[in-house]
Amino acid sequence: MRAGNRTSLAKAITLIESSNNAHKEEAQKLLQELLPFTGNSIRIGITGVPGAGKSSFIEAFGTMLCKMGKRVAVLAIDPSSSLSGGSILGDKTRMEELVRQENAFVRPSPSAGTLGGVHKKSRETMLLCEAAGYDVILIETVGVGQSETYVRGMVDFFLLLVLTGAGDELQGMKKGIMELADGIIVHKADGDNVRPARRTMQEYKQILHFLQPSTPGWLSTSLTVSSLEKKGLDIVWDMLMEFEQTIKQSNYWTTRRHEQTRDWFHTMITDHLIDSFYNNPERKKQVRSLEEEILHGQLTVTQGVNALFGEKNE
Amino acid sequence: MRAGNRTSLAKAITLIESSNNAHKEEAQKLLQELLPFTGNSIRIGITGVPGAGKSSFIEAFGTMLCKMGKRVAVLAIDPSSSLSGGSILGDKTRMEELVRQENAFVRPSPSAGTLGGVHKKSRETMLLCEAAGYDVILIETVGVGQSETYVRGMVDFFLLLVLTGAGDELQGMKKGIMELADGIIVHKADGDNVRPARRTMQEYKQILHFLQPSTPGWLSTSLTVSSLEKKGLDIVWDMLMEFEQTIKQSNYWTTRRHEQTRDWFHTMITDHLIDSFYNNPERKKQVRSLEEEILHGQLTVTQGVNALFGEKNE
Repeated sequence: MRAGNRTSLAKAITLIESSNNAHKEEAQKLLQELLPFTGNSIRIGITGVPGAGKSSFIEAFGTMLCKMGKRVAVLAIDPSSSLSGGSILGDKTRMEELVRQENAFVRPSPSAGTLGGVHKKSRETMLLCEAAGYDVILIETVGVGQSETYVRGMVDFFLLLVLTGAGDELQGMKKGIMELADGIIVHKADGDNVRPARRTMQEYKQILHFLQPSTPGWLSTSLTVSSLEKKGLDIVWDMLMEFEQTIKQSNYWTTRRHEQTRDWFHTMITDHLIDSFYNNPERKKQVRSLEEEILHGQLTVTQGVNALFGEKNE
Repeated sequence: MRAGNRTSLAKAITLIESSNNAHKEEAQKLLQELLPFTGNSIRIGITGVPGAGKSSFIEAFGTMLCKMGKRVAVLAIDPSSSLSGGSILGDKTRMEELVRQENAFVRPSPSAGTLGGVHKKSRETMLLCEAAGYDVILIETVGVGQSETYVRGMVDFFLLLVLTGAGDELQGMKKGIMELADGIIVHKADGDNVRPARRTMQEYKQILHFLQPSTPGWLSTSLTVSSLEKKGLDIVWDMLMEFEQTIKQSNYWTTRRHEQTRDWFHTMITDHLIDSFYNNPERKKQVRSLEEEILHGQLTVTQGVNALFGEKNE
């Protein structure tokens, strides 16, 4: 795998994703051995509403990077494929050119499971790709639900893809999504759409000026891109390189990664506590019935909590 | 207390805030008896950067409401008084006119404690004020830290106070604060400042157009107010009445309050689980040492979690 064998990497990821207990132990041992070789990529999260053209952007952008000699891994986080109409990466035919590149590794999203589970696996998959020598990790997520916050919590740069007519298409997106973004790409800036795309880009720049930056020390910006005509893709890469240089200089690069790992650890502890608390049909029933009493004004919230944890109410 | 005696209400709040175990039980019994009389106010959260003039706004707005015959309770949430330079309501002299009104009840922020503790008490204090017949509850919070999200989670309407020169002063505020707001007041719109304030108001209206509404079915809007010249305060009240009517018609009023209560219950359960887990010096030390191993790349996050919960790593 370390020698760049893609089949070995794919096998390692399958091991990480396995729910078999023996596999889990083996996977963790493998990952532990590989930890010293992780961390050397630029981790980029990519989101956008369905229809924004995330797949065609990743195809065009990833192919350009491969041709520049970069090794590019593409992962997808799609915990809600039933909601979003299926994983985009499931439809690999749309990434025909990219998957043919020797320097590319495209991994469809893991099979559905709990949100936490999927994300845990995605982080570990990202580390495996780094250990296998990939320099650019593109992590795709759909612009709905909670996955953006998770992805923001595991990447260096977060990219939002939008279309012209700013504002309207944001209605379908998660609240606060713009404040997660380090860069906003107005996509499909081709043909008659070039001028409206530029106008939209200006509008986004203005809005970004009012919002808090997603990364301290970096002024989030907006660009236009045409994946169809392959225009603006190099500017995106320049932006990413400028970002990396700026944030590394301020030392926030490492600080953030440490914070992300720490947060991930604490989130997993909390998830474990909540899971083991609710993982009991009797407990679930009790919580539901206390909830009803509270909503009907028969019990205070404090009394409800005391009842659960066996503290006296009277 | 139900007869409108302010001294009784103040005593009941002190009982709710007490950390004495016997008092706690008594307080919960009292609150349980009063639950049927709660829920009949409009709950308004008010935030803004230090210097935005929250106290003078509450003084002028609350006094106007009292003169209209409303009964107004003012509470403060200030879990970080060391950070923010002290509770604003601690300085009661700035609300001289309001505290003289027979229909007003002004309660300074409870003494510091855990964030969860302060907020738990604030919610219960709010319910006590409702049971005592107050129709308007104003809950003030400082525009830094985490308290806005908590306050947003306990009120019907969330009001943000800003000054002219939009954007600049937002830099000191919490990320995403604008998306929590149902209304943004450009304050101190008096004298030479009237025209810049109107311009700023227009800018905010434009930005709000791009953001997701804080309350489904309500288009968040912006107004100018001068508390000094008592201008625009009636428009604020008109806005609140329109909001109440609109949201009650769509039934979201009750839906949101139920959601808020349910979330509060589940947050308290989670807080309890986390507190009891970490409430052990040995455990804390173990978590810190695992954290170090993880950050130094000696252990995977999953191995760290397994070590805590006694699962085998190898």
